Amino acid sequence: MAGASKSKAVVLLSGGMDSCVTAAIANQTHQVATLHASYGQRTERRERKCFDAVSDFYGVKERLAVRLDAFRQIGGSALTDERIAVPESGAALEEGAGIPVTYVPFRNAHFLSAATSWAEVIGATTIFIGAVEEDSSGYPDCRPQYYRAFEEVIRQGTKPETHIEIKTPVIAMRKSEIIRRGIELGAPLEHTWSCYQFEDEACGTCDSCRLRLAAFAEAGLNDPINYRVRVGTS
Amino acid sequence: MAGASKSKAVVLLSGGMDSCVTAAIANQTHQVATLHASYGQRTERRERKCFDAVSDFYGVKERLAVRLDAFRQIGGSALTDERIAVPESGAALEEGAGIPVTYVPFRNAHFLSAATSWAEVIGATTIFIGAVEEDSSGYPDCRPQYYRAFEEVIRQGTKPETHIEIKTPVIAMRKSEIIRRGIELGAPLEHTWSCYQFEDEACGTCDSCRLRLAAFAEAGLNDPINYRVRVGTS
Repeated sequence: MAGASKSKAVVLLSGGMDSCVTAAIANQTHQVATLHASYGQRTERRERKCFDAVSDFYGVKERLAVRLDAFRQIGGSALTDERIAVPESGAALEEGAGIPVTYVPFRNAHFLSAATSWAEVIGATTIFIGAVEEDSSGYPDCRPQYYRAFEEVIRQGTKPETHIEIKTPVIAMRKSEIIRRGIELGAPLEHTWSCYQFEDEACGTCDSCRLRLAAFAEAGLNDPINYRVRVGTS
Repeated sequence: MAGASKSKAVVLLSGGMDSCVTAAIANQTHQVATLHASYGQRTERRERKCFDAVSDFYGVKERLAVRLDAFRQIGGSALTDERIAVPESGAALEEGAGIPVTYVPFRNAHFLSAATSWAEVIGATTIFIGAVEEDSSGYPDCRPQYYRAFEEVIRQGTKPETHIEIKTPVIAMRKSEIIRRGIELGAPLEHTWSCYQFEDEACGTCDSCRLRLAAFAEAGLNDPINYRVRVGTS
């Protein structure tokens, strides 16, 4: 049986490019189980579709989609609170701009907690997450030291026989490198979504669309998804 | 205004005795906000009622009840998976018995993640959780080193201006001490629930009922809630 000797990994698959390429990397060495979390973000239906499509692409047998309702109730982010507008100016992407309003408070801990609980039950020994430090708009939970700290929580908070490490294979890459790596590995980037605002057609103007479009331009490649407008790439 | 000068704390209130007494302790020094999480456990409706009653008792204005649906899907515990029976033998309470089937994989990380996200949004600087090491049936996420590790994740994963510490005031107490302390502080123990199995009347035979009844007996006090049977206390 193909892959029967590979150890199992839980890959957090958001529907975005970074986690799609992370899945492509994980798929080379591990038997992949995919985990998706909806948390009331504006584009959750589209991201869920991307999760299904990427999981199908890699023939994933074990997949889990969970709902994290707390974020809608907690608010505090433009992604989950409709009273806070998604920025379109690009200003939040400038160096020293601080943490943008699209930061979802302590979000990745919820994702990692779900991944750890599931990994412990299905016997996975690795969690892959597509966090990116450099291009992440300054989110504090996208830095390597955060993942090392979380590994310690896993060590302390699971059964003695449970051993789970967290891998962040794209954390030090620029977005354009992630795209190139994805294409090299044949990752289905056409089944990914980055827009913070819309679900049918990417807006092309939010910070996340700007980052994605600029990265494709830098990589000298064409983004296969549809946009309303493509700022700065004409 | 009473309490206006106190700093704000999020108290995780499960509906059980330990968190009720923790709330009583927190209430002495902090402006308390209460957080409850349902996770598909067998007795979730009853625990939710206790959360409301204890929050009312302390006149809590900021309260949040969240649903963590992932655990039902993930399973792996007698509390959330109906195919795994709740133990009634008392054997799981013996020393060296290992981690019992009532362990919910990595559960407290989900609770602490919700508490941290909410604390960051409402400006609370402390999280109180009623974890108990000695009497906790060997759950790995009830030990002090687990909470120290989680504090480091909070430091790394929140905004630079966010400072949140985790307090576990009953972690080193025996259950009987917790009861005595609760009574000393006037905590509403009649509005708490410990049974793993039933919601209307406590079974009296599951590990959690056994621990509770033994603790009341040790404290020389009468448990104010109703039981079907009271094992070993006749």
